[in-house]
This record gives sequence, C-alpha cells and structure tokens, in this order.
Amino acid sequence: MKSISFLSILSLLALTLPLVIGSDPSPLQDFCIGVNTPVNGVFVNGKFCKDPKLATADDFFFSGLHNARAVNNAVGSNVTAVNVNNLPGLNTLGISLVRIDYGVNGQNPPHTHPRATEGLIHFQANVGRSPAVAFAALSSQNPGVVTIANTVFGSNPPINPNVLARAFQLDPKVVIDLQNKF
Amino acid sequence: MKSISFLSILSLLALTLPLVIGSDPSPLQDFCIGVNTPVNGVFVNGKFCKDPKLATADDFFFSGLHNARAVNNAVGSNVTAVNVNNLPGLNTLGISLVRIDYGVNGQNPPHTHPRATEGLIHFQANVGRSPAVAFAALSSQNPGVVTIANTVFGSNPPINPNVLARAFQLDPKVVIDLQNKF
Amino acid sequence: MKSISFLSILSLLALTLPLVIGSDPSPLQDFCIGVNTPVNGVFVNGKFCKDPKLATADDFFFSGLHNARAVNNAVGSNVTAVNVNNLPGLNTLGISLVRIDYGVNGQNPPHTHPRATEGLIHFQANVGRSPAVAFAALSSQNPGVVTIANTVFGSNPPINPNVLARAFQLDPKVVIDLQNKF
Amino acid sequence: MKSISFLSILSLLALTLPLVIGSDPSPLQDFCIGVNTPVNGVFVNGKFCKDPKLATADDFFFSGLHNARAVNNAVGSNVTAVNVNNLPGLNTLGISLVRIDYGVNGQNPPHTHPRATEGLIHFQANVGRSPAVAFAALSSQNPGVVTIANTVFGSNPPINPNVLARAFQLDPKVVIDLQNKF
Amino acid sequence: MKSISFLSILSLLALTLPLVIGSDPSPLQDFCIGVNTPVNGVFVNGKFCKDPKLATADDFFFSGLHNARAVNNAVGSNVTAVNVNNLPGLNTLGISLVRIDYGVNGQNPPHTHPRATEGLIHFQANVGRSPAVAFAALSSQNPGVVTIANTVFGSNPPINPNVLARAFQLDPKVVIDLQNKF
Amino acid sequence: MKSISFLSILSLLALTLPLVIGSDPSPLQDFCIGVNTPVNGVFVNGKFCKDPKLATADDFFFSGLHNARAVNNAVGSNVTAVNVNNLPGLNTLGISLVRIDYGVNGQNPPHTHPRATEGLIHFQANVGRSPAVAFAALSSQNPGVVTIANTVFGSNPPINPNVLARAFQLDPKVVIDLQNKF
Repeated sequence: MKSISFLSILSLLALTLPLVIGSDPSPLQDFCIGVNTPVNGVFVNGKFCKDPKLATADDFFFSGLHNARAVNNAVGSNVTAVNVNNLPGLNTLGISLVRIDYGVNGQNPPHTHPRATEGLIHFQANVGRSPAVAFAALSSQNPGVVTIANTVFGSNPPINPNVLARAFQLDPKVVIDLQNKF
Repeated sequence: MKSISFLSILSLLALTLPLVIGSDPSPLQDFCIGVNTPVNGVFVNGKFCKDPKLATADDFFFSGLHNARAVNNAVGSNVTAVNVNNLPGLNTLGISLVRIDYGVNGQNPPHTHPRATEGLIHFQANVGRSPAVAFAALSSQNPGVVTIANTVFGSNPPINPNVLARAFQLDPKVVIDLQNKF
Repeated sequence: MKSISFLSILSLLALTLPLVIGSDPSPLQDFCIGVNTPVNGVFVNGKFCKDPKLATADDFFFSGLHNARAVNNAVGSNVTAVNVNNLPGLNTLGISLVRIDYGVNGQNPPHTHPRATEGLIHFQANVGRSPAVAFAALSSQNPGVVTIANTVFGSNPPINPNVLARAFQLDPKVVIDLQNKF
Repeated sequence: MKSISFLSILSLLALTLPLVIGSDPSPLQDFCIGVNTPVNGVFVNGKFCKDPKLATADDFFFSGLHNARAVNNAVGSNVTAVNVNNLPGLNTLGISLVRIDYGVNGQNPPHTHPRATEGLIHFQANVGRSPAVAFAALSSQNPGVVTIANTVFGSNPPINPNVLARAFQLDPKVVIDLQNKF
Repeated sequence: MKSISFLSILSLLALTLPLVIGSDPSPLQDFCIGVNTPVNGVFVNGKFCKDPKLATADDFFFSGLHNARAVNNAVGSNVTAVNVNNLPGLNTLGISLVRIDYGVNGQNPPHTHPRATEGLIHFQANVGRSPAVAFAALSSQNPGVVTIANTVFGSNPPINPNVLARAFQLDPKVVIDLQNKF
Repeated sequence: MKSISFLSILSLLALTLPLVIGSDPSPLQDFCIGVNTPVNGVFVNGKFCKDPKLATADDFFFSGLHNARAVNNAVGSNVTAVNVNNLPGLNTLGISLVRIDYGVNGQNPPHTHPRATEGLIHFQANVGRSPAVAFAALSSQNPGVVTIANTVFGSNPPINPNVLARAFQLDPKVVIDLQNKF
C-alpha cells in the first residue's frame, strides 16, 4: 500500500461523494440477516432472514477491505463491493460500501446503479502519478451496477448490431468488433 | 395515422411494459399543482405548489397525445412525454406517460430513467414493416431520461477521449469522431 | 374497433390522467416475477418471486389489450386490467395499466384505488356519440379498486339497512332494494 | 362523561383499530412545525416549517380531547380530529388522532382516508344502549377524509344525475332528491 | 379506575403527542395478517401473512386496553402495547397503540423507538397527585422500544465497565453496581 | 498519520458496518444542492435548493477527511461528519459519511441516530495499542446523533434529578453531580 498517495485517495473520495445513490430502506425489526435459501423453489423481494436466535457476530463482519486488489485488467481498476451478498447483516439497512483500487491511468468506467439514489451515468479516473484507492458508500444494501459498455456491447444474447450502429452512429463492423471484445 | 398497424402498437406496448421504473410518490394533500416560480432565488426538491384556490381543470389536462410526431431524425423515432413539466397536476402523484412514434426500422435508443423503478438500460426497435406507436407509463412524475450515447459521447464539457477509448475499447480517433457527432 | 373515434379516446385519456394514484415501489433486485405459491400455508406481503433462473420472456408479456370488450352490462363499460396478477413481471415495479371500453352513455362508475396515489373518488363517463376507449396508468402493481355502489350496497354479509339508510338519507326500503340489486 | 360506558368505548376502539391507514412519514430534521404561510403565492407539498428557534411547547400541545361533542346531527356522531392543521408539531411525523363521539344509534358514516394505509371504505355504528366514545390513530399527519355520501351526492358542481342514477341503480328523481339533501 | 383523574390523563396525552415516531408502511394488498411461522427455518423482514381465506374478526380484535395494570415496580408505571405481535391484523399498516398506567410519581423512563418517526430520547412523568393513564399512537406496527438505562447497564453480555465509566463519567464501581441492578 | 495501524482501522470499520442506519431518500430531480436561506421566515422539511444554474463543482466537494483530529477530550475520540450541512450536494441523496479518530482507549460513546436505519444504541471503543481511525456511512444526508449521556444528563433545561435518579437507580446526588459535568 505504500505507493498509494493519501492525497490521491482523498481527491477521489471527494469525487465519488456526489455519486452515491439509493433504494428504500425499511427495516421492520431490529435486524434481518439475509439468507439465500429458496423455500419450495420460491424467493422473496430481497432475501429471507436467518433465524435471529442463530445470529452471530460473523454475520456483521467483513474482512478484506484492507487488501489492495490487482488492477492489471482492461480498465486498470478493481472494485471490492461489501454489500448484502457478502455481509448478510446489512440486509434491510439500505446501505453498502465499495473499495476501488486504481492503477495509474486506471478508471472505474461509466456505469449506473439501478437501485441507488443518483442513477446518473458516472465514472472516476485516476489522473495522478501513483496508484490510488477510494472508499464510497451507496444507499442500498444491494445497489447493483450496470457498466455501460459491457451491458450495451456484451449482452447475451447480443443486441442486433444494426440497432447499436444506429444508436451509437458507428459502422456496423465496428459494433460487431466491440461485441466480440466484450 | 392510417399507416400504423394496430398489432405493431400492441407488440411494442408489451415490449415496454417491463421497462417502467419509479421514484417515491408521497402526496401530503389532495393535490399540489406544480409551479416553477423560484422564491428569493431558491427552489424546493420537486416543485412549489400553485395556490389551490386558483386550480383550474386545465392544470389537469394535456392535449396532443393523439398527434403523430415526425420521425425523420437520426434514430427514426420521437418521444412525446407527458409529465409534471407539461401537465402540472401530476405533481406528487408519482406517475407519467409517454407516446413514442417509430418509423420503419426506427428505435428508441438505449437509455435509463434515473428516477423510475427499473433503471436498467433498455431500448425498443420497430421490427415491423410499417410505422408504429407505443404508450408507456413511468412510475414518477419526473422520471428523467439518460440516453446512453448522447450522455457518454455528447457531454458538455466533453469527457477526456482517452478515458472513453479505454472504457469502450475504441480507437481514440473514433471517440473524437463520435464526440463531434453527438 | 372502427366505430371508436380517436378523439374520444384522447379526451378520455386526458380525463383519466389526474386520476392515477399509487403505493410504494421498492424493488430490491433486478426483477422479482410474482408467483402465488403459498409456502406451508403462509404468504408474504405482496408475492413470492419465481426462481430468477426460470424467468422467460412470457413473464413480461401480456396479449389482449388490443381486443375491445363487450359493454352490454349495467354500467355500459368494461375494464381490462393489466397488473401483477396477470403480468407477473410487474411485481415490485409499482405500476400497472388498464384499458377501459365505454359504450355510448357508458361509465366507469365512482370508485377509489386503495393502493394508488390519489384515492379520491373518481369516475369517467362517455359523453360522445360513439363508443370510446381509454388507457390509464396506476402507480401500483396491485392498485385494487373499490367500486362505491357495489361495496356499500353489495357487501357480503350485508350492512345493516338502517345504518345505510341513515348514512345516505334514503328510505330503508330503498336500501333493501339496492342490496338486492348489487 | 358519566353516561358513556367504558366497555362501549373499548369495543369501539377495537373496531377502529384495523381501520387505520397511512401516507409516508419522512422527517428530515428533528422537527418541522407546520405553518401555513404561503410565500409569494406559492405553497409546498405539505407545509412550510416555522423557524425552529421560535418553537414553543404550545406547538406540540392540543387541549380539548377531553370534551364530549354534541351529536345532535344527521348521523348522530361527531369527529374531533387532532392533526397537523391544529397541532402543528405533528408535521412530517406521519401520525394523527381522532376522538369520535357517538349518540345511541349514532354512526361515523362510510368513508375513506386518501392518505392513510387502508383506504378501504369503513364505518362504525354504536350498537350499545348508551353514548360511546372512541380514540383512533391514523398513519398520516394529514390523512384526509372522504365521506362517501357527501362526496357522491353533495359535490359542487353536482355530478350529472343520470350518471349517478346508473351507477347506483336509483331513479334519477331519487338522485336529485339526494343531491338536494347533501 | 375511579382514582384516575381525567385531567391527568389529558395532560399526559398532550405530553405524549409529539413523541410519536414511525417506520414506512407499505401494504401491497388489502390486508396481511401477520403470522410468526418460520418456513424451513427462515423468516421474512416483518412477518409472513396468514392465508387470507382463513381471516377472522379476531385477527383484528384486541381486548384488554380497559384494564388498569399494576404499577408497583421500580419506575411506577406499566406499558400495555397493542402492536403486530398481539394484534396480527395491524401487520403492514404502519401503526400501533400503547396504554400507559402511571402511579403517583411514576414515570415511563427515558427511551427511544428505533422504528418510529421521532427516535429522540423521551420520557413521561406523572406530576399529579393521583394515578394517571395515557393512550399514545406510534407510526409503526412494530416500533420497538429501547429503554436507555436497561440497554446501557443491563445488556447481556455486559459492556466493559471501564467503557461505560468513561462515557457516563461515573466511577467504575458505580457502573458495576448499576450493572448488577439492571 | 504514521502511528495509526491499518489493521486497527479495518477492525473498527467492520465494527461500525452494522451500525449504519437511515431516513428515506427521495430525489425528485437530478440534484438539489441544499441551501439554508429561510424565505420570509419560513423553512422547508430538509432544505431549499440552490438555483441549479448556479451549481458549481465545489457544491459537491469536501476537503479535510484526510486530516487526523485531536482526541485529547473526555472520551478520547473525535467525529468528523460529512453531511448535507457541510457538503450541500448530498441533499436529497439519503447518505453521508463520518471519519472517527480514536486515541488509545478512546471511544465513540453510546449514541443513536434518529434518522438512519438502525437507531439501536451503539458505540465503538479502540481496544488496540495505537490510535485508530474509522470511516462509516449513514443512510441519511442528515442522520443526526443523540449521545446518550449528554442528552440525558446535559439537557437544557435540566431534567428533574428525581426523575433521572429513579430511571437510572442512582442516588439523586450522583445525578446532580453528573448534570454539572455534562
């Protein structure tokens, strides 16, 4: 972690502050530790709760936010999300956190969060000369993320290339090339 | 309107049904007809209300949804939105409507609604052999729309082309070309 | 459908716009296709969700809104509702649609929606010289409808006629006559 | 108050419990004492707040719930409502109370509350041999009340009698007679 | 009940009015009678609903609010709560009631409600010369109560006495003494 | 900052995760930068919005989270809150952050947040051998904080010592002593 300048961290923190967005928290009891067990093949909106008598401190504990993550990928960044899927005690509380590691010139590419308060398209880019790290909060225990490029060009099944060519005013061949990359 | 096949309308209606999304309606009185008047240079979240004693039937009336709109533009479609901005009686009710006209091969390009219940990226394309029209409802009186291509490549001030080139895995020259188009 | 004038459609659409009302949408995941399966004899507020891995396009598709419905009944109208009960993909999205067919002099009689944003008593009447049709949106996937006359005079078990006679200032015999009709 | 039997009070309390209904409370600060002052002719959804530095204990105090009210009227009851309009400290708290006095055979006639959680049509009738009193809570600081008979037959301007005659399956002359009463 | 002065009741009612607080009601159907049955060892946020076809009037009825309760305890008061746990028809309606009996010099000690609209610490004390009773409403069907002294000094397992000594600026021996009392 | 061990930071972060709590975010437009300007002596629930045409990047920027704060006070900790009061762009987004510095044996004493999702009484204590720092998120742009000891024993005007003596089972002299300290 020594190579990560603290000032870069903070300028990124400031940058991500207005990006937080959110769905509606409505705890109806002291806590509802989320479990994924489907019952008879059906699910609920959100999650079923663990039997409260079986709650343990581990249900409210996540270890690993102190670990830097590798950024040797196409966008030069790595997002570590702490939400209801890996910290089940967050269920119904309407909040979550992410750690984002950025390499030099790394970026968290344009994306939206379908269940958090902003939803406008946003991104961050490390314009400093050293790696950087940011911590951001989101106003949902399960905010979701829709990365624009992956969703548009990497959907499965693929979107008709002629449709995307007209939407993005690109040559259809370029669209097909992008669909192969994503 | 004669050239618009009714079946095409309905297949599009079905297509747009799951796309509706929404913000939180919370009427605290019988109605609050929205007005834009800022007071001393400040605004409120949403809108101020018109004096209820001055309410008229026109505050709840919108005329024009029966008019087809021209579709001779880059995407071959035209969206007529009826929301709190042109039908002020919808204020605080958490709902709005749009009429969408599509030419042959026309599309409502990939977009999201930041204040409506889905928020996932969606689009519609007219795959029939005649013009088509759809009516869709959105779960906010002011759902907003973020058209992906315009927002990413047409933002003002423009996003650094190198950032977009890496995000979309495009040649920076193609990005600059797109930024000139949008 | 040829006998339905388009202008009548639109004037009714305008009439129904301010009537839309709404409960609180709170999707906690990308989608939750509603299923009615009770589990061990219990239910949840709203609906259980279908296993998302079993989702199909049909869960988001409703066919039939293009069909005119017969209006040869006591009020001369027919409401076709498209909500979570027949379009399960609408679950948790907080929105639904209705098609209303009206004969000449037909009416959608005074009613309220207990889970939609207005709740005030409203009605529509076709004052034109031809049949008419309207499409309206409601701010809940399950808005409900409480038709005043049916609820007051047709409840089962029936309300004490003396109570209704005093509430509506009617002769008790008239109340009993109404209770037999509804 | 001596003539009001306590058991009657309690049976009515139990009767009214499931009838409570509600809008969305969202206090964004410790308190917001409601004031009616319009500013430049505009209002807000709900109420403006009094300057918190000018708050007094009286803003949170209502005196009079201990007073029985006269019930010599058409329905033999009297509703004393304590809500944001006469207890301004309730603003944004999403709750209110009513005291209802009933004479022998008195009733609180069929009605709904457009901004409270149930909204189904409900009523209470005193079936005991002595006057009675009930206290009920509603889940909004401004729940509103729509009394069915008054709203349907007493609206101003009046609803076309032929429309009401068809809706309620009454003779138009009876409708006109009712419209004159309400 | 003869020894309870009515004026004392009312002054307490006024005192408790601004104390009501609340969570978010969101009924998605006409009613959802709460049941505690866990299914396969899992629970839901709030409660499962009883099969609506098995609903009875008793699900909406609570008897006992007319009974004074003994106040010969450490704080000289007794709270009778009527909420979703003993009146299952209140489920999803976002409201509940309490009856509070106070002896002379009795108090409802400092506490908060984690799921109701205020949440500020509040208390009531009977400053009159006779027993008193109050009825208060809370904006949640399950508001919860956190009594300050019991929670801080009576938690199980106990909080480190040195931590509490520093927080409350008490001698650690006094803290240990309090922990033995609560 | 060198003397703050990273592991201590993380163990505290994990400790504070389940403590986050929250009010209801409901942005009705892209952003509403909060301003405090009262208009004609009245306020709104929350804040008025700045004219959006006058928005600047500074409205979304907070500098200072990188600065350690002095902890030489009675509890050995210092909370730096970043919320709508000092970062006005957070208005209506339903989220905020705090930085907490802890000396050795320092604590963030027992408290609640009246407008955030948990509301249960919670605290953190540094049990390590070096200073520590934590970042925590709260599900409101204005969550508030009610520190138990200060509120109970330091209220102005003071609470009757006999009431507190009975509530906390302390000698009245000890209560008066505490009231002098807080």
